[in-house]
Amino acid sequence: MNDTIRLLKSHRSIRKFEERDIPKELLIELVRSGQSAATSSHIQAYSIIHVTDKQLRDQLVELTGGQKYVASSSDFLVFCADMKRSLEAARSTGESVVSGMTEQLLVATVDVSLMAQNIAIAAESEGVGICYIGGIRNNPQAVSELLSLPQHVYPVFGMCLGYPAHDPDVKPRLPVEAVLKENSYGDDTVHVNAFNLTMHNYYQARRGGNKISNWSQSLVPLFNQKLRSHMQEFLVDKGFEMK
Amino acid sequence: MNDTIRLLKSHRSIRKFEERDIPKELLIELVRSGQSAATSSHIQAYSIIHVTDKQLRDQLVELTGGQKYVASSSDFLVFCADMKRSLEAARSTGESVVSGMTEQLLVATVDVSLMAQNIAIAAESEGVGICYIGGIRNNPQAVSELLSLPQHVYPVFGMCLGYPAHDPDVKPRLPVEAVLKENSYGDDTVHVNAFNLTMHNYYQARRGGNKISNWSQSLVPLFNQKLRSHMQEFLVDKGFEMK
Repeated sequence: MNDTIRLLKSHRSIRKFEERDIPKELLIELVRSGQSAATSSHIQAYSIIHVTDKQLRDQLVELTGGQKYVASSSDFLVFCADMKRSLEAARSTGESVVSGMTEQLLVATVDVSLMAQNIAIAAESEGVGICYIGGIRNNPQAVSELLSLPQHVYPVFGMCLGYPAHDPDVKPRLPVEAVLKENSYGDDTVHVNAFNLTMHNYYQARRGGNKISNWSQSLVPLFNQKLRSHMQEFLVDKGFEMK
Repeated sequence: MNDTIRLLKSHRSIRKFEERDIPKELLIELVRSGQSAATSSHIQAYSIIHVTDKQLRDQLVELTGGQKYVASSSDFLVFCADMKRSLEAARSTGESVVSGMTEQLLVATVDVSLMAQNIAIAAESEGVGICYIGGIRNNPQAVSELLSLPQHVYPVFGMCLGYPAHDPDVKPRLPVEAVLKENSYGDDTVHVNAFNLTMHNYYQARRGGNKISNWSQSLVPLFNQKLRSHMQEFLVDKGFEMK
């Protein structure tokens, strides 16, 4: 196992940070590393809002569901899928352009994710801890207004970055056999069952077993309600009509 | 700049491969590295179809628009956004579950992208070259049938992996100032113009200037037509109703 693979396999989300700031030059280096990720047809369909204003950070704590590390981390980045820049660039050539395709939503969402993951890895390689904040989609309209996001740009997730002030465990993952299939999808029930046992033991050891009992149970809150049911309408309003 | 950041910044897509195969143990190590990426609420909403069957590989060359390296690379992986496994796990607890939310499409698309990017980096750290294949979305229904993908699973992109048999340039990226914004979205026209000049010079040097003249022009084919207009209906059919 080489050092990079060792780094990748040691990832865990960091939610408590030292007061020490990330040097600005390092942050820029991390973003450049992000930009080096593969991008569909060279489109680079992403923008990052670096939230340095203290008041905005405090408002984002509320808008993401009270996650205090959104304010207490050294840096907070809002990763946006951005079709505006490329749409306007194409339009500037004099051609007529089509917006709002579902395909464009996918391209931009994938593009920003690949870029963000490069930033996460670059950060971790420098001893910086990170935490993705999906809660940015709790109130995407309010976040968009707060950061003046234009049409064809939507906030996909946030990321807290800072020097770790705790050392959480690496959380188990599904057996590789559940995820890696050969030539067809097949059936992975046996691996899910094995993973339920793994997570049962994990929760028992860490939480005394008085909360969630296994992986399947941990997923229930994601599916027993219409989670973030505003996303469809929000995206359409933002110019991602899904057609 | 540390070695990991140097690695990230040296990425370029590889489309010509040596005949040498990637050892199976290494491929599994790469996938485990992928699984170590952050995942929303521990959902791990992804599956990979490792296409080892020669006939399937040849069919996938056709379905992705004649990209021969889909067959000639050592390994070809189809990355799927997978809500089936977690939906069924949650349902197995006896709870009623909701599927088809736009939010679920986003979660799974982001999850599989973060995982894939970890695999890309792990691969490159071992001297393996990669190329993402967005062309998997040219014929997603046919790909789904070929690989027996069930409801709530959709193919997002493919990835060719193998030992590089060429050494292409690292392609320029937008100025970091275009992508990294402070506190609000703002205007990046000046940076796009600068990048148009960068890419103009890049194309001049490499192609004698007789094809695309700058970045804006290179994007026109992505927007002057309804590219992959089947995606909306395909996703709805696959159980991603977007509600």
